[in-house]
Amino acid sequence: MNILLVAGAPQESWPTIKQSFDYYVGIDRGSLLLYQNDLPVDLAVGDFDSLKESEHKQIVSIAKELLTAPAEKDDTDTQLALAAVLEKFPHATVTLIGATGGRIDHFLANLWMAVETRFRPFCQNIVIKDKQNTISFLLPGKHMIKKENDKQYLSYCCLSVVYGLTLSKSKYTLDNQDVLQPTVYASNQFIEDFAEVEFKTGVIAVVQSKDQ
Amino acid sequence: MNILLVAGAPQESWPTIKQSFDYYVGIDRGSLLLYQNDLPVDLAVGDFDSLKESEHKQIVSIAKELLTAPAEKDDTDTQLALAAVLEKFPHATVTLIGATGGRIDHFLANLWMAVETRFRPFCQNIVIKDKQNTISFLLPGKHMIKKENDKQYLSYCCLSVVYGLTLSKSKYTLDNQDVLQPTVYASNQFIEDFAEVEFKTGVIAVVQSKDQ
Repeated sequence: MNILLVAGAPQESWPTIKQSFDYYVGIDRGSLLLYQNDLPVDLAVGDFDSLKESEHKQIVSIAKELLTAPAEKDDTDTQLALAAVLEKFPHATVTLIGATGGRIDHFLANLWMAVETRFRPFCQNIVIKDKQNTISFLLPGKHMIKKENDKQYLSYCCLSVVYGLTLSKSKYTLDNQDVLQPTVYASNQFIEDFAEVEFKTGVIAVVQSKDQ
Repeated sequence: MNILLVAGAPQESWPTIKQSFDYYVGIDRGSLLLYQNDLPVDLAVGDFDSLKESEHKQIVSIAKELLTAPAEKDDTDTQLALAAVLEKFPHATVTLIGATGGRIDHFLANLWMAVETRFRPFCQNIVIKDKQNTISFLLPGKHMIKKENDKQYLSYCCLSVVYGLTLSKSKYTLDNQDVLQPTVYASNQFIEDFAEVEFKTGVIAVVQSKDQ
């Protein structure tokens, strides 16, 4: 089950969407962007305060399901959407777009969903994408990272304390390093189709990126 | 002493620059952007691998000082630039632009400079800005946050473990909360000209943001 979550950042931030998805979720203004791109809106989530009255009506009429959030709440609309989706489809692979390039507080809340207790067990099935970046998440263990053809750089971003970080099969390597504060090992590069990373605790965001 | 650091993200990400600065630093492609905007280049830092040969020559000829970094290094160009600037002017106020909206790994490395041991003592003098966001940094203590006129939202982003977080004089408040993992308290709002925040350990990024 492949699910696309579309948050409200402008469409110019979107990556090229090649595949089709099984389920489409619009987050606030993202619902309108799905509709404008002739994509279905299986679920629309948000307080829709970013939409005009006529746009809101349009979304209410075309969304197969609507999850209306109060404007004043603890969660961001994206957190609400992810929680709703994972409750329905706990084994789904989730791609989140439109979640970068706008408000930095929103972006950080989206990035750090991976360390939240409720989302952490699912974080390896979540990918955040925009036109320059693919962000995936890793839990402790040994992992192979597959190179994306259009990306030059490979960076490991330790979102929390990470013990025993070993990077191998990449241009720069690291051996059993303890990382005690948020740290980016940036601008590494693949030397084969797969790079290898292993660690004992924490959550790592793997960013494959390219210059504009 | 007010210093402007310009990193390489496209100029469309820049905030409106109203004030003039005492010292201008171009980081890689940022040097070219300074030059193209008729601003001085007091220091140019980087490996300049993002520039064409002719552009590179131009920068070499106009920069008052040049700090050429090897392409293969541990630090990002922005880290190198900030280290150089703080060595020259440890009491300076530093505004960093062109540091958001491109490669996410670069942005996170920039954001997390505030928790690096070498930069942490200076972090309260550093501001990262783009057209939608102002990010400032706080060390433990009690602080008043001044509202920026053009911003609607106030968010507190705990970059590391934060003990005893108290938010007051804002729409949403918090009392002596221990925050054990990176967390955003997003979309808070000012109720007066100043909001108040107090905490005992860690580093907090304060983001004032607006919708596009």
